[in-house]
Amino acid sequence: MASYNKNGQVNIYDIAQMANVSIATVSRVVNGSDKVSENTRKRVLEIIVKDGFTPNVFARGLGLNTMHTVGITVPTISDMYMARAVYYLEKFLSENGYNCILGCSGFEQDGKKAQVDLLLSKRIDALILVGSTYAGSGENIHDTDYIREAAKNVPVFVINGDVTGENVYACVCDDKTAMYEVTSAVIKSGRKKIMFLSDSHSYSANKKLEGYETALKEAKIPVRGELKMYVQNEIHYVRDMLLQYKNLSFDAVVATDDAIAVGALKYAAAKGLSVPGDISVAGYNNSSMAIASEPELTSVDNHVEQVCFDTVERLLKVIHDEAKEVKPRVMVPCHIVKRNTTDF
Amino acid sequence: MASYNKNGQVNIYDIAQMANVSIATVSRVVNGSDKVSENTRKRVLEIIVKDGFTPNVFARGLGLNTMHTVGITVPTISDMYMARAVYYLEKFLSENGYNCILGCSGFEQDGKKAQVDLLLSKRIDALILVGSTYAGSGENIHDTDYIREAAKNVPVFVINGDVTGENVYACVCDDKTAMYEVTSAVIKSGRKKIMFLSDSHSYSANKKLEGYETALKEAKIPVRGELKMYVQNEIHYVRDMLLQYKNLSFDAVVATDDAIAVGALKYAAAKGLSVPGDISVAGYNNSSMAIASEPELTSVDNHVEQVCFDTVERLLKVIHDEAKEVKPRVMVPCHIVKRNTTDF
Repeated sequence: MASYNKNGQVNIYDIAQMANVSIATVSRVVNGSDKVSENTRKRVLEIIVKDGFTPNVFARGLGLNTMHTVGITVPTISDMYMARAVYYLEKFLSENGYNCILGCSGFEQDGKKAQVDLLLSKRIDALILVGSTYAGSGENIHDTDYIREAAKNVPVFVINGDVTGENVYACVCDDKTAMYEVTSAVIKSGRKKIMFLSDSHSYSANKKLEGYETALKEAKIPVRGELKMYVQNEIHYVRDMLLQYKNLSFDAVVATDDAIAVGALKYAAAKGLSVPGDISVAGYNNSSMAIASEPELTSVDNHVEQVCFDTVERLLKVIHDEAKEVKPRVMVPCHIVKRNTTDF
Repeated sequence: MASYNKNGQVNIYDIAQMANVSIATVSRVVNGSDKVSENTRKRVLEIIVKDGFTPNVFARGLGLNTMHTVGITVPTISDMYMARAVYYLEKFLSENGYNCILGCSGFEQDGKKAQVDLLLSKRIDALILVGSTYAGSGENIHDTDYIREAAKNVPVFVINGDVTGENVYACVCDDKTAMYEVTSAVIKSGRKKIMFLSDSHSYSANKKLEGYETALKEAKIPVRGELKMYVQNEIHYVRDMLLQYKNLSFDAVVATDDAIAVGALKYAAAKGLSVPGDISVAGYNNSSMAIASEPELTSVDNHVEQVCFDTVERLLKVIHDEAKEVKPRVMVPCHIVKRNTTDF
């Protein structure tokens, strides 16, 4: 095992020591010089490959400590919330002279780790993880060990995921309160059979479920298992799934994403039910989908622009050695945008 | 001016020569050793900074010619078409063992160049530019010089932009034919006053305009300037703009993007006009917006998945030294997805 420098990476001195050659020899090998014996070349290369030496250390040794580049990873960029977050992050970073490189990790643990490692190898000054999937379900602390590991190299910022650790900064939307308020408003407008539609068991989705259940309990409405449904985040999938249930009775839908809510609108249209007369529907994320639908959708705005602005602001402070001024965790409130699918 | 190696980059030998020191000295400077005089250190650093030496050359010299990483740049990731393209590119690349890093360039020439340069500095094996904005308007060949310049370093793939050059590969959607077919179908369904709504003067938008005008001319319908409108790609913007025109008469809309078409649907709803009875509306890109709207939108599917699949397939061939099997330009046909906003 090599001795690691403070960045957790092997440098040219370590390689030279391990290969028992001079630094100049390592340099010659690295630069493909033919003034090195084949044996030496092989030995050095093997160590380099094995111990993960990357040219990063050259740049860092240079005193060029900043490349003005931030790594951003999202589970999938085809999700409108993620795409908007990346749009704003890139905008605010570039306004401050920082470039961003982006990776897509998928939702699996291995993919997340691999993407974080890849970005760390790219001479980045900081890392931003977008989406509550990076925080796991919140049940097992070790799900987020890879984030604290990454934070040994660069400051890590998690958007909408609650992760703690040294050099880790979280910005969390108050999804629980938002879903509590939406559900309460739906209840106050006279609804009793309120369906909760979700596409995820992420930290954020679980907070939304908590908000939904809290509102029901407060109004002394029983929480019924058959009214909590997990669906795919696709309009027609949601419509068709709801159409399959013959005896399911509900007078409102609160959804964890706008596309799911639009699926409920399509269900209502297919059944000849009026919205919000027969069924009241509320979405989440306040995306362009909420405006495209007819009637236009009441939706929770989780202030993605503000979340991204705050994150970049804190990131710049941390990079500029003002970390002690930066709170490790901030919570951003959401607000409900009332449109035409609810009667509150 | 330094002598450049085949990658177009300065290497450690060049730096040593220019600074009139040994390679070992450059290596010491690069690694922050204190066994170098302050003067020498300064001289070497100045040359390094000035001549753009990057640690890439170390990696390339290593024989680690591939990092299995592809750079992707889009003008903006908040556009659903771009987000879907990046989603598919990342998917196909990662299935083939390649990672992708992504940058957002904006639509300005300087931003595009800067983003391409940034990605080139990141040890990428190939570069993909997504969107016809990278091809300029097609009027000035020098608009795309930066692409041919980049192609001296790595193969460059342009999605939906017609660019030619050595080591440059284009995949173009047949937007002209698609818009010709949509417009012709609208005409055959009895419409004569067909509005063309576009948000761009890009290569692709110009091809769509050509298709629209060709269909009108073929049907001997005059092309009227007041029916060709340039708008922002925002639903309510389009609705409100159309509502402002008191004396504008049209019985159909063909749009270059679904969000624009949905804006026309909102206009019709606000005016109490029936769709497709009074106004027939067709969108473009077949996005989820086309399904979210009511009625659901007839739209052109430009096969973003296939375009991305073809691009990755050709990219892998070029990287694996099978470039002579790869055509520099392929054209992918579009097809019309008929839904409920047209009567053809």
